[in-house]
Amino acid sequence: MRMKIGDEIIKLKQKIDEAKYICLVSHIHPDGDSIGSLLGLGLALESINKKVAMLKIDDIPYKYRFLPGISKIKSYGENEKFDLLIILDCSDLDRLGSFKYIIDKAKYIVNIDHHISNTNYGDINIINHEASATGELVYNILKCLNLYIDKEIATCLYVAIATDTGSFRYDNTHSETHYIASKLLEKQIDLKRITFEVFQNKKLASTKLFIEALNTLNLYYDDKLAVVQVTQQMLKRNNAEFNDIDGIVEYIRDIETVEVACILKEIEKNEVKVGLRSKRYVNVADIAKVFQGGGHIRASGCTIYSNITEAKELLVKEIGFYIR
Amino acid sequence: MRMKIGDEIIKLKQKIDEAKYICLVSHIHPDGDSIGSLLGLGLALESINKKVAMLKIDDIPYKYRFLPGISKIKSYGENEKFDLLIILDCSDLDRLGSFKYIIDKAKYIVNIDHHISNTNYGDINIINHEASATGELVYNILKCLNLYIDKEIATCLYVAIATDTGSFRYDNTHSETHYIASKLLEKQIDLKRITFEVFQNKKLASTKLFIEALNTLNLYYDDKLAVVQVTQQMLKRNNAEFNDIDGIVEYIRDIETVEVACILKEIEKNEVKVGLRSKRYVNVADIAKVFQGGGHIRASGCTIYSNITEAKELLVKEIGFYIR
Repeated sequence: MRMKIGDEIIKLKQKIDEAKYICLVSHIHPDGDSIGSLLGLGLALESINKKVAMLKIDDIPYKYRFLPGISKIKSYGENEKFDLLIILDCSDLDRLGSFKYIIDKAKYIVNIDHHISNTNYGDINIINHEASATGELVYNILKCLNLYIDKEIATCLYVAIATDTGSFRYDNTHSETHYIASKLLEKQIDLKRITFEVFQNKKLASTKLFIEALNTLNLYYDDKLAVVQVTQQMLKRNNAEFNDIDGIVEYIRDIETVEVACILKEIEKNEVKVGLRSKRYVNVADIAKVFQGGGHIRASGCTIYSNITEAKELLVKEIGFYIR
Repeated sequence: MRMKIGDEIIKLKQKIDEAKYICLVSHIHPDGDSIGSLLGLGLALESINKKVAMLKIDDIPYKYRFLPGISKIKSYGENEKFDLLIILDCSDLDRLGSFKYIIDKAKYIVNIDHHISNTNYGDINIINHEASATGELVYNILKCLNLYIDKEIATCLYVAIATDTGSFRYDNTHSETHYIASKLLEKQIDLKRITFEVFQNKKLASTKLFIEALNTLNLYYDDKLAVVQVTQQMLKRNNAEFNDIDGIVEYIRDIETVEVACILKEIEKNEVKVGLRSKRYVNVADIAKVFQGGGHIRASGCTIYSNITEAKELLVKEIGFYIR
């Protein structure tokens, strides 16, 4: 999908040339792609002497704090005035959370994203859902704009791409994705450090919670349904948070026999957040809908307002109707 | 490290041209790289109408059985006569296990490998330790020999490279590695299937053993030493084998606080196999040496002839001398 220098890129170049002070922002609950593409573009714009504000709208997860320039992502006063607002990796403006107000103050909005659901909210929209990551788009934009990609920028873009592709495993990984990764590695980035920080530096509390949650694993319907649960007590005992076990539902889905995987998170005594994944044929969006939730065929969620034991019973019974 | 058409390649081309019946073999305990590079080269040689024997010297792990042409890896009678023997991914001939006899019958041996410790045992030696995987070398050889890489060959080589680089995470991943992956993905290989079969299709027994082994996790010396153990009873209870928990010692090493990770495997009542990993500064080869074992700075092993409780006590005490 190598990017062509089209109208949008020419307009973007013109707007960047004109702007003195540029604000970059990405979505709430930042991930590797939002942070990496924000920093990659931000550092590149600084290198051509633009004043750049990289807006912090949520805490940066620990594993990304080694990224070059990370301290430049920070808070700004509400009265800050920018010539140009560039929004990265946001399918819609609700993804800005409480920072949505910023768009009312923006003179001109550039929307750079790879989500198929993007609502084209920008004055310029550079959207390509074939790109594995927004980081891949930023790479192509920097090439089109003739901006130099140094080792620091390359590090940020590599992390963006490596995380959004699950280390080049997901099928959003294309030939072009590896080609760009190849070009970024030419910049002598420190892959050993990246791998260590991003993938191999688990908190002890997370690991302990992960083990305790795995111990709750129950299998039903000839081992086709796998269920784990996390209670408030488990969080307290391990001094951990729900996001410490991100990935556990995918972990149990990947058991050979499993078609549907389910995690129950006790938010409060009578409020249970449910995450559902399926592998081949069950539409978990339909199951979530029964409980007023939603999502996609293979990944969905809902909230059940009862205690965790009852919630589990309800769910297991319901899922039984979908499993062959 | 793009390969040049040097003397060795010219000699290889000549030998392949002359040969009618070619035997390919790789190491015992086959992995993604040995199987993928064997199949990749084997299928390519078949495509130019060579008679090819791909020798099975050990069972193929379940996760690689989807690979195109996998049923061609099979046993052959001891009296089979080959014109050419190509040995892949074997640092030395002991890695052929009980099939070592085959070299005495070989008229001519080609040695293709990426291990730095390779002993150059071939008549032709194509060794490059900068290659991430032998699969990367095979790709380059096929290009040099002008052999067409179809979708099936590309699938095998992609699996070889993706597994030996830990999904492009290990620092044997170079710019060239991603470049080749990019070229292989151009062949429309089914990445979704590869990821599912190789990385996301855990046996239920493995998962249960993994959970039980994690439950034995003990931490010492301010959480800098992590130890897990697997007994014969645990294997039996879960109907699993030791190789079902491959990766667990790396899993516990990757806890933030941990410098040394250790797994104890009870082989028999008074025989414990020990695996050691370190992260930054401890030389675990030195620790293994104390127990007549060996290995590398960051990965080593030894066998302790006592019961698992005593073995653990001995080890924990010894490791204490190395941890700051």
